[in-house]
Amino acid sequence: MSKKIAILGSTGSIGKQTLSVIDQLGPQYSVEVLTAGSNYRLLSEQVRKYSPSLAVLSDHRAAEELKYLLRGEGCAVSSGREGQVEAALFPGIDLVVMAQVGFSGFEPFVAALKQGRTVALANKEALVIGGEILKRQGLLDLNRILPLDSEHSAVWQCRGSAATGEIEKIILTASGGPFFGFNSEQLNRVTAAEALKHPNWQMGPKITIDSATMMNKGLEVIEARWLFDLSLEHIEVVVHPQSIIHSMVEFVDGSILAQLSEPDMRLPIQYALTYPVRQKNSLKRFIPFGRELHFHEPDRCNFPCLDLAIAAARQGGTLPACLNAANEVAVSAFIDGRISFKAIAETVEKTMQSHSVTAQPDLEDILHADYTSRIKAEEIAADMTGVE
Amino acid sequence: MSKKIAILGSTGSIGKQTLSVIDQLGPQYSVEVLTAGSNYRLLSEQVRKYSPSLAVLSDHRAAEELKYLLRGEGCAVSSGREGQVEAALFPGIDLVVMAQVGFSGFEPFVAALKQGRTVALANKEALVIGGEILKRQGLLDLNRILPLDSEHSAVWQCRGSAATGEIEKIILTASGGPFFGFNSEQLNRVTAAEALKHPNWQMGPKITIDSATMMNKGLEVIEARWLFDLSLEHIEVVVHPQSIIHSMVEFVDGSILAQLSEPDMRLPIQYALTYPVRQKNSLKRFIPFGRELHFHEPDRCNFPCLDLAIAAARQGGTLPACLNAANEVAVSAFIDGRISFKAIAETVEKTMQSHSVTAQPDLEDILHADYTSRIKAEEIAADMTGVE
Repeated sequence: MSKKIAILGSTGSIGKQTLSVIDQLGPQYSVEVLTAGSNYRLLSEQVRKYSPSLAVLSDHRAAEELKYLLRGEGCAVSSGREGQVEAALFPGIDLVVMAQVGFSGFEPFVAALKQGRTVALANKEALVIGGEILKRQGLLDLNRILPLDSEHSAVWQCRGSAATGEIEKIILTASGGPFFGFNSEQLNRVTAAEALKHPNWQMGPKITIDSATMMNKGLEVIEARWLFDLSLEHIEVVVHPQSIIHSMVEFVDGSILAQLSEPDMRLPIQYALTYPVRQKNSLKRFIPFGRELHFHEPDRCNFPCLDLAIAAARQGGTLPACLNAANEVAVSAFIDGRISFKAIAETVEKTMQSHSVTAQPDLEDILHADYTSRIKAEEIAADMTGVE
Repeated sequence: MSKKIAILGSTGSIGKQTLSVIDQLGPQYSVEVLTAGSNYRLLSEQVRKYSPSLAVLSDHRAAEELKYLLRGEGCAVSSGREGQVEAALFPGIDLVVMAQVGFSGFEPFVAALKQGRTVALANKEALVIGGEILKRQGLLDLNRILPLDSEHSAVWQCRGSAATGEIEKIILTASGGPFFGFNSEQLNRVTAAEALKHPNWQMGPKITIDSATMMNKGLEVIEARWLFDLSLEHIEVVVHPQSIIHSMVEFVDGSILAQLSEPDMRLPIQYALTYPVRQKNSLKRFIPFGRELHFHEPDRCNFPCLDLAIAAARQGGTLPACLNAANEVAVSAFIDGRISFKAIAETVEKTMQSHSVTAQPDLEDILHADYTSRIKAEEIAADMTGVE
């Protein structure tokens, strides 16, 4: 019997890699649902290759184009937010892969969890912004949310069947990005082109910049907190420039388990797809001979985004939504050459300072915080434009 | 309800450390049986402290002394091989710790396994020499033999609940010992005093020399083969001078799990005692910041004992018994200053070459191989004495 997969966000980086993993895994995995935002051309090609029962685009006009391209293909087409939720709830699905970008993934994620579905999660915002709501609603069932991030997958693999009380802490590794070891003066001069060159991973531009500022690791700390039901004191970050150890778990007896591999997102994706078993593949193996693994303390002064994220998580409420929104605005402004690298953290920090936090927020509160924080961050970034 | 422990070999290094772990674990662990070879003074002190129901010494005269020292203590005293078997089968025991030195541990080990007992195994020879017999008798139940060696404990912890078919290979780490990186000429000049200084571990003299020759890692390959039901092609050795990663498991999907800690035997001992849960302790933690982990290919030319052990394992039969016996003789001769460091491997190799292997041996065959190999190795070592 085949394992039936829905992929929400199939035209993005993680979505495409998920499909390539399924290509390798063979016919016991079948793609039943594919969704994307507006890329109807690529989605129509994917539908022709994988013959799902349902295809969804968030953009209504793009969905009309898709319908036209797929006429006679026997694949239903839906659109909009309702379509994404329909995809997450499509009957007979064994695993829903959440690979969308941004907070639009939250609604189908909640819908899937409420129906008791197993979800493989790559969408960071769903937990960073929505984790507190999910926790309050009792929806954070660790057995049903399978992490796709390499770090969280590593923790999941290392944790095994240990109870939360047996975990002393988790140690998330960070490559440190292209500017690890830079001092304040050097960071003053870095360009977007330099920031977009990640030493170890091939990723989209937003996450690559987040990796350079260490905001990415801060967001992962927040995700880890919800995924593994740990308080922030039990989550540590270590810089490991080789990106071979993807994270570690330290148990209460002092024993540490670490997960290693050459950096390749297809490994954590495959693990989530084949879980609870492992399946052979031809990914490049880590050969230890002649290799060195180094570990450093993060530079929290020159890379303040890490602590901004942790501060947002500590206060909670709408503050993580504010952090995330401000960071998205600031990163865009940096990529566009409007603000400097160091102004990313300053923009986020100032936006957070001006944000009036709502405790125990509902979804409306969070959407409002997201909206107002974007406007505020744009103002702050505009003030900084051209300022060194 | 307390967990009742029998410790066979309680006056040796592992036995004493097991007792110190039990001291820390608290009253839910009770020591019911203690055994040793001939050290009646230390055993009588241990009996006074832990109040077991039975104490055993292999040496009959020493057992008489023990009885005298323990008169009125309410502890039964037995002696000889029968006494050690009685200890392994003592009623109501939850875990039998096998910490004896040498092949004398085999008989009580087999007795315990036949009775379906759970055994924590530190005694190398039981598997190195007796593994093939145990396998043939269907006694190698991986759920009942808990490894105490740091390397095998690491594999056990990394393996988790994975099936054997999900394991691509296990990677045993070796410190390389005090002479790692030495060339042939440098090895010509090393002394026993230098070989006895292990860079990372405090151990007895025999195992410290085995570590310097890499015979220890060879014996561990043989143990691992039986413990984890793997063919020799699926067991790899990597030199890791820092002794922080105690071993690794590579799964068929290319994911590797590694177990890390500061080197301290009390950690794997505690894990076996508290299994399947973990319990808090105050052992020194591995702090990754500023640390480096290096990995090298073993130097199989200058440290031929590793491949001698693997060759013995590959041929099987009585050859591992011959290897083990010849190595014990050669190491003694080296410690006594009778032969050179390089002559250890030569003695083992020549003894193996002269050995006529019995396939599918029974216990008698193995004891005979052990006996004749010791005599042969003594002859060979004597011929080498004084020869550079």
